[in-house]
Amino acid sequence: MAMKVVLAILLCFVACESLVSAQESERRRFRFTTEAQQCKLDRIQVRPPSRRIESEGGITELWDEADEEFQCAGVGAIRNLIRPNSLSLPKFHNAPMLVYIEQGEGFMGMNYPGCAETYEAQSTQSSRSTRRMGRRIGAGRSGEDQHQKVRRVRRGDMIVIPAGTVQWCYNDGGEDLIAVAFMDLNNDDNQLDLRMRGSFLAGGIPSESRREIRGSKSDDLVNIFNGFDQEFLAEAYNIPTELARRMKEERSSGLIVRCDEEMSFLTPELEEEELSESPFSRRGEDSNGLEETICTARVQHNMNTQREADLFSREAGRVNILNQLKLPILRFIGMSAEKGHLFPNAQHNLHWSMTDHRLVYVIEGEAEIQISDDYGNQVFNERVSRGNMFVIPQFYPALARAGQEGFEWVTFKTSNQPMKSPVAGYTSFFRALPLQLLEQSFQITTAEAQQLKQTRRQHTFLFPPSSSSRSRSRSRRA
Amino acid sequence: MAMKVVLAILLCFVACESLVSAQESERRRFRFTTEAQQCKLDRIQVRPPSRRIESEGGITELWDEADEEFQCAGVGAIRNLIRPNSLSLPKFHNAPMLVYIEQGEGFMGMNYPGCAETYEAQSTQSSRSTRRMGRRIGAGRSGEDQHQKVRRVRRGDMIVIPAGTVQWCYNDGGEDLIAVAFMDLNNDDNQLDLRMRGSFLAGGIPSESRREIRGSKSDDLVNIFNGFDQEFLAEAYNIPTELARRMKEERSSGLIVRCDEEMSFLTPELEEEELSESPFSRRGEDSNGLEETICTARVQHNMNTQREADLFSREAGRVNILNQLKLPILRFIGMSAEKGHLFPNAQHNLHWSMTDHRLVYVIEGEAEIQISDDYGNQVFNERVSRGNMFVIPQFYPALARAGQEGFEWVTFKTSNQPMKSPVAGYTSFFRALPLQLLEQSFQITTAEAQQLKQTRRQHTFLFPPSSSSRSRSRSRRA
Amino acid sequence: MAMKVVLAILLCFVACESLVSAQESERRRFRFTTEAQQCKLDRIQVRPPSRRIESEGGITELWDEADEEFQCAGVGAIRNLIRPNSLSLPKFHNAPMLVYIEQGEGFMGMNYPGCAETYEAQSTQSSRSTRRMGRRIGAGRSGEDQHQKVRRVRRGDMIVIPAGTVQWCYNDGGEDLIAVAFMDLNNDDNQLDLRMRGSFLAGGIPSESRREIRGSKSDDLVNIFNGFDQEFLAEAYNIPTELARRMKEERSSGLIVRCDEEMSFLTPELEEEELSESPFSRRGEDSNGLEETICTARVQHNMNTQREADLFSREAGRVNILNQLKLPILRFIGMSAEKGHLFPNAQHNLHWSMTDHRLVYVIEGEAEIQISDDYGNQVFNERVSRGNMFVIPQFYPALARAGQEGFEWVTFKTSNQPMKSPVAGYTSFFRALPLQLLEQSFQITTAEAQQLKQTRRQHTFLFPPSSSSRSRSRSRRA
Repeated sequence: MAMKVVLAILLCFVACESLVSAQESERRRFRFTTEAQQCKLDRIQVRPPSRRIESEGGITELWDEADEEFQCAGVGAIRNLIRPNSLSLPKFHNAPMLVYIEQGEGFMGMNYPGCAETYEAQSTQSSRSTRRMGRRIGAGRSGEDQHQKVRRVRRGDMIVIPAGTVQWCYNDGGEDLIAVAFMDLNNDDNQLDLRMRGSFLAGGIPSESRREIRGSKSDDLVNIFNGFDQEFLAEAYNIPTELARRMKEERSSGLIVRCDEEMSFLTPELEEEELSESPFSRRGEDSNGLEETICTARVQHNMNTQREADLFSREAGRVNILNQLKLPILRFIGMSAEKGHLFPNAQHNLHWSMTDHRLVYVIEGEAEIQISDDYGNQVFNERVSRGNMFVIPQFYPALARAGQEGFEWVTFKTSNQPMKSPVAGYTSFFRALPLQLLEQSFQITTAEAQQLKQTRRQHTFLFPPSSSSRSRSRSRRA
Repeated sequence: MAMKVVLAILLCFVACESLVSAQESERRRFRFTTEAQQCKLDRIQVRPPSRRIESEGGITELWDEADEEFQCAGVGAIRNLIRPNSLSLPKFHNAPMLVYIEQGEGFMGMNYPGCAETYEAQSTQSSRSTRRMGRRIGAGRSGEDQHQKVRRVRRGDMIVIPAGTVQWCYNDGGEDLIAVAFMDLNNDDNQLDLRMRGSFLAGGIPSESRREIRGSKSDDLVNIFNGFDQEFLAEAYNIPTELARRMKEERSSGLIVRCDEEMSFLTPELEEEELSESPFSRRGEDSNGLEETICTARVQHNMNTQREADLFSREAGRVNILNQLKLPILRFIGMSAEKGHLFPNAQHNLHWSMTDHRLVYVIEGEAEIQISDDYGNQVFNERVSRGNMFVIPQFYPALARAGQEGFEWVTFKTSNQPMKSPVAGYTSFFRALPLQLLEQSFQITTAEAQQLKQTRRQHTFLFPPSSSSRSRSRSRRA
Repeated sequence: MAMKVVLAILLCFVACESLVSAQESERRRFRFTTEAQQCKLDRIQVRPPSRRIESEGGITELWDEADEEFQCAGVGAIRNLIRPNSLSLPKFHNAPMLVYIEQGEGFMGMNYPGCAETYEAQSTQSSRSTRRMGRRIGAGRSGEDQHQKVRRVRRGDMIVIPAGTVQWCYNDGGEDLIAVAFMDLNNDDNQLDLRMRGSFLAGGIPSESRREIRGSKSDDLVNIFNGFDQEFLAEAYNIPTELARRMKEERSSGLIVRCDEEMSFLTPELEEEELSESPFSRRGEDSNGLEETICTARVQHNMNTQREADLFSREAGRVNILNQLKLPILRFIGMSAEKGHLFPNAQHNLHWSMTDHRLVYVIEGEAEIQISDDYGNQVFNERVSRGNMFVIPQFYPALARAGQEGFEWVTFKTSNQPMKSPVAGYTSFFRALPLQLLEQSFQITTAEAQQLKQTRRQHTFLFPPSSSSRSRSRSRRA
């Protein structure tokens, strides 16, 4: 009982926080009014990307933000595959993003205007960086460079990118780097429309190299310098016209380019980085919110760390939650995320989100998922698998059962402190309700009502496989 | 003069608060752009409910949120009549609500996920609850139950229900319980569209039993379990398939059911409840905001308490205001309310709301009400009476005069700290303006300007009947 | 280097602040979804006013808020020309406004409901006010008046007017007073639609006197009293019906009236007012936010004070920024402004706004301005001059070069703590980027990359004329 109270208090805290902190959220929603704009989701679908842009150094896939569910939720999604020794060119977007590194590792740069160039690279720093020196002919003090922080990213990392912030990503690893990005278009930081807009600061794609999966727009996508007259740029920057022309140039190599030679960036040792992710340093951050300035804000969190799991069951699986209490910058971005792993045949409790829309991306395995609308209509009943993406709208109840190989997913949420309401189990509606009320509501006996109150009583969201599913799975295997 | 300054300071405080606290408000509005969406309110109308759903245990009436003014204001309304010994089944809505108990009394439950089951019901508790014991056959420890807080509600209570929160209401009194609910659809807590959505956790209505007042949609409205496969549910809950089937069942008894037997819930003594409403305990709440957690937040306030009136005139009437300073949870909900009583022939000052749309519901009596738009067109000129509901849009000036029997109303507002700007009287535009400016603006003499400045000088919003209206009323009676 | 760090820290502070303080902003945006509503800005145009209303005492010009860019940005604009000894009649608007006094001087009144009438005018006060006394026949205590604060405004002042607040303006100077007002229609304080709505409390315009520049609506615009029945008003105010009729009267003199005689209002000596604008008193305000109440909030700031310039270059020009740190009330209004002066042929750095839409109004001189969209299309390439107004949407990069006579402008912004991201110069993207990345992104040599990193290195936003433009200008003059 004591434990129960403690858990209850902890859970209350989360619930309470979600209201208290709402005041600090950047989350601001618009509402639809005309027929065309309503969230009339008779059927929710697993959506494949609608556009695919092949570049020299990788592939960019875009989900169509005009799809019914995406539009209702006001979200967008992009998947980038960056080949080894390739660079996703610098760009900024019109809405805040959460980027999940699905595979590989590399460097990621994010540039805030006005932050100091706090990384000093010197020629003696590393053998790799000296290798490049040969090319630095003509530079004043050859071999020296100062720039803003460059981050090391790896599989499992979630990175927060504020709206309008320039970012780039370089794959220095041996395998393809795959990054899945979630944009919250209906965020207050985006005062434009609900279109995904990426503004490139270099590169560009010739129209013929873009392959439309569904027939949509095919404008030229070139870098922003193309919008300015060459000599105007040259004068503004006090540079030769030829260099200004070079900047504007649409590169046939596209949005992701293969680099002439391997790049290496100064980063602190990996061990130190790990250290800074210890619970102690994080606690320090909580007390300050943004530490000193946005320039030093933590924007990165690894979602794969098992010892940091927020829900954990030896029989059912685990869930890592990333919210504003873990990563304070989320407080100002109005988003959060969750990464989960269900063991084979385990289930995720029937529940609805009280606070946000969710975009689910399947990383591994399979699951059967059912979603209901407010009228009790089944709007989704699919077996989802790797690479699938779908929306679960706010207030829509959902239920999931992992397949034979288990189920691993990442969920992006449009709230910085989300709250879920489960139907059964430890913190559920069934347990909260007086017994008599269950009896009268469902016209059942006291015994049945007690069965509902007691079912899965020790579990919250993750249910171990039931005996029936185990036998079913056995029979299937047979 | 000193009193004037004190009042001015108090009023300033309110004004100031409304700006200061706006930062904590959940109020976030979208704007319309296309022709179709504009607030083109050439005429505001008193709106009757557009749908009526008859259930075994009562009647549910819904106002059409697509009506011009409702759509402009982004609000919806529902009126429930619950017969004695009947239960309005558990459900949740897609937007925060304010519920006003117009008549009767009963129990209301609201379930937050994660809050502890802090109410322990035992068989020895009350004679009423023992009566039920006979039926509790098969229960493990018969006669014991733990559940979340259940609230006693009665006539005059205003209850706050956050979006997505499960609520139910049981009438244990002798007369019909009537509850009028106001939904703020355009609230940031609702990320879906502007439709009213009620998701039932039990019950449901067969399509034939729904009577459409105006020809609108007639989908089946059943409980959310209907959206899931029976065996999927049975497995998830580890319950017999038969019980899962029972839960999904559409009950012909509808959304409000008559109970087999009288229910009774454990509640603290009424006296203690009254005590907790004393000004002292309330002052304590102010200092903390949400007290400890959302689980113990106060969500209920009686609007009929004369000694708590915020505006009070022996000749004109009184107004009770409910804002975030009285009920801190409103700070996170972005709504507020007001209940007023005008004496026969008394008037409510000409004024406009600087901060919010208002939905007015007439409880008793009659009034003549006129509303103007920004172009000086009269958009409303009606004699409203009991049960009428109408919208006063933000910035639209309005003026009211009570009928022969007086006028009693409740106003729901889409702001957590509303501010009104009166034209005449103690805190008005007329008094704030320099004399010369009144002269030049209206081309009137200094004497007339002074008359405008002095008129109703001791009153703020409630004006006693003028002599002319008294005589008029006499002549009518004659 | 030390200075660089200090500047970087200061700039970081601004960046950081803009995130931190966002939580206190009133800025809440809606998003468009249907085709019709998207910000499809293939071409941005310099927009002239679309309506012109001539009144006896001046001219009112309105920009069409339905124009593509205005609609995308959710803004509106009005320009009032008030002739000497004329009065812009009391009115309120449906959204917060920033008003810039382009020319002249006068008195401005803003009336908050509930604020005390803290200005006592007595007959002995000034010779001017005694002059008026002759007319005050019939007044109880002739020659005495109490009213709310009246503000002295002059060229260069920016005044903040909250939504729904009554304001009026009287020109007591010798030249025409010109005021340019910017309305943030898509502000959360406006819960109505995106139309500009001005509700007049006196005056009005007969339809024939309104001249439509483009054929739009021609409803009668009269004062709000017109929306109420005469006798209803008389009774409510306890005034003669004749006086009520006079108030409703549509004055053929329009929205700005010529006064019968000169008016004068009590204001503290100008020297004292200047004093209160010293950095010391302002610092005090910062520590409190709203000082005591909204009644005493500072709402006025002169943008022409050279010693307060935030960006300053002897060769290029200067910029005065007005944000919530200077004028705390902006924190609750969600807007800010900037006034800049570029010297002849100087340039404004290529940059984009990360936080807001901007409405630019040209005060003096000329400039060539180019704007690009996210696809690298040039959407604006104009030589703008005095009186021109245009929108720069959020995230759209822009570049400017002053003409031969320099360029003076004022920018209104839809964020209370805006942040700009420059491409080149001291705090720029180029400098933040590692050298190698510039090489790979633009396919340039190390030397060229270093040139980009070093260009304009000592400048942030204002660039002195380059040698080429100087010679060009010489050749043009020749």
